[in-house]
Amino acid sequence: MPDRTGQPAAVTIDGDGWVCPVPLRDAPNIVMGHGSGGAMSGELIEHLFLPAFGAAAANGLGDSAVVDIGGSRLAFTTDSFVVKPTVFPGGTIGDLAVNGTVNDLAVAGAHPRVLSTAFILEEGTPLAEIAHVAEAMGAAARAAGVHLVTGDTKVVDAGHGDGIFVNTTGLGSLAPGVDIRPQRVRPGDVVLISGEIGVHGIAVLSCREGLEFGTTVHSDTAPLHEVTAALLATCDVHMMRDPTRGGVAATVNEVARAANVGVRLEENTLPVPAAVSDACGLLGLDPLYVANEGKLVAFVAPGDADRALAALRSHPLGRQAVAVGECVAEHPGVVAARTGLGGTRIVDLPASEQLPRIC
Amino acid sequence: MPDRTGQPAAVTIDGDGWVCPVPLRDAPNIVMGHGSGGAMSGELIEHLFLPAFGAAAANGLGDSAVVDIGGSRLAFTTDSFVVKPTVFPGGTIGDLAVNGTVNDLAVAGAHPRVLSTAFILEEGTPLAEIAHVAEAMGAAARAAGVHLVTGDTKVVDAGHGDGIFVNTTGLGSLAPGVDIRPQRVRPGDVVLISGEIGVHGIAVLSCREGLEFGTTVHSDTAPLHEVTAALLATCDVHMMRDPTRGGVAATVNEVARAANVGVRLEENTLPVPAAVSDACGLLGLDPLYVANEGKLVAFVAPGDADRALAALRSHPLGRQAVAVGECVAEHPGVVAARTGLGGTRIVDLPASEQLPRIC
Repeated sequence: MPDRTGQPAAVTIDGDGWVCPVPLRDAPNIVMGHGSGGAMSGELIEHLFLPAFGAAAANGLGDSAVVDIGGSRLAFTTDSFVVKPTVFPGGTIGDLAVNGTVNDLAVAGAHPRVLSTAFILEEGTPLAEIAHVAEAMGAAARAAGVHLVTGDTKVVDAGHGDGIFVNTTGLGSLAPGVDIRPQRVRPGDVVLISGEIGVHGIAVLSCREGLEFGTTVHSDTAPLHEVTAALLATCDVHMMRDPTRGGVAATVNEVARAANVGVRLEENTLPVPAAVSDACGLLGLDPLYVANEGKLVAFVAPGDADRALAALRSHPLGRQAVAVGECVAEHPGVVAARTGLGGTRIVDLPASEQLPRIC
Repeated sequence: MPDRTGQPAAVTIDGDGWVCPVPLRDAPNIVMGHGSGGAMSGELIEHLFLPAFGAAAANGLGDSAVVDIGGSRLAFTTDSFVVKPTVFPGGTIGDLAVNGTVNDLAVAGAHPRVLSTAFILEEGTPLAEIAHVAEAMGAAARAAGVHLVTGDTKVVDAGHGDGIFVNTTGLGSLAPGVDIRPQRVRPGDVVLISGEIGVHGIAVLSCREGLEFGTTVHSDTAPLHEVTAALLATCDVHMMRDPTRGGVAATVNEVARAANVGVRLEENTLPVPAAVSDACGLLGLDPLYVANEGKLVAFVAPGDADRALAALRSHPLGRQAVAVGECVAEHPGVVAARTGLGGTRIVDLPASEQLPRIC
């Protein structure tokens, strides 16, 4: 869930009023956009879950929480996965779930340790499909060095689920001194991306709705814990996040709002592979809003940027890392991108879904 | 998930051969019984998930795991809830989820600390229903003294979910010396139940399928952490479990198998309320197999039984606690019940679902 703390409901830049586009009160029922990871997801948290949970809620219900138990600093994170189809080019819902939770721990600065797995299976789902997904989970967990230690399986009647839903919740250990929070981001900080963007969303879309783009795009699902460890060993990282639902646009917006800084992206530095660019052109999508499952965005002090980039590039999963922008004191909470033509456009928090059920 | 460790596939008692009634190979697709918490759930874990996860699996994927991180002993547990309807007499899917996860931590001997919450919502679900459920979660969490610290929301298209599914995953701290494991159960141990059985399952069933039983049965959903704390302060508890899916029968069978002891229950000591008894008689159900959501089964040494019973009865949620049987060296892995008529019947692990989607 996006962190919505510390941000007024409306900000203004260059005379344009920005207002949360879909107030909760205008949507009496859940719509797909509430699961987008964008503004509507934030509305749901801010105006429904947080008030309903009341004093039981802590940490703004963020993507992950740091908890102190018995003298240990732990990172704790949960994600349910409903991607459709469950098997797509480059991965399955199983490795996606394991890598997604490993990555939420990794970008919290933690060393991933154990995961729980909870399945909601639809009656009639072939056991062979479940076994295939479970094998992918096992392989992903072994690759990431995490153990699957506890689980649960529920079955719902046919027509009341959709094959396989899986929740993975993870626990990681935090080294002393690691302090990854959007509130640490300051004007001047450099924004780094660990590699090519938009790949996962296009990979899932390409095998759905009968769409074909000539080239097969494979999901970038991958565990980032070694990349984050390399980064943390190099410099004092202020903030990291994996830009999944809502893409880089959602992630950078959430950080900008929570940090109360502006962000200026340089569009021509964004690493968009040709196949993603082509597919986005065809479909009218913006690669900044398309989900990634094996990339991270990091915010570091300007003096650390070169060392951080070198650390990212030292790992195969960060080889194509680049700096894509910087934080500024102007337009706090707002992300702007300098276009290839020299103009500037606002990169809003996405309101709702471009691509539903991609994770 | 039931613990299936250390138990041969078939056991024999009194000349009757017991064989797992539904081998996985005979079910090419998922059926409701795979979510029963009974023999078919065990088959799925043993023959599908554990082999597929391979070396990544640890702890036999039990209901909860004890993990050591940074010198802290923690209990970790996950559960997804798919109960239908989401609001029933005495509770909602929200408090059921919080209490269910609190109880899984409590019966592991842990002090519940933090929970994650992950929703899978169906497009079109009224926000008012979600708010009602979330308020119940907040109230249950406050009552249990746990914080909801991280979350996730996914939305699936109409017709591919069923209103509200929620996963709660919990983390608790374990005091030094607490060691709750079925392997600690020995012949002679006394079996205690904290109160009346079968209430939750009948409560859910009573408001579904248009059934009415004259008296409204209210779910017993409740947090048991204070009851378990009172018990642990009194004696060295060998094993505890909350008898949810599959009821007392499933729980006692799982413990008997993992401990390799026999269990003899005294049927006339089982606390079955009249309304549950009546409903079960009408529907052909056995109260031993009906789910509970606010009860625990404990195994203690015979010399501790009186103290343990007194400790249970000292708490409002354990006021009706009773001893219902004992562990024996004979028929290891098998549960037998002495009936009111003086005969003995085998209380098998349920094969599949009596009552689907009750949690």
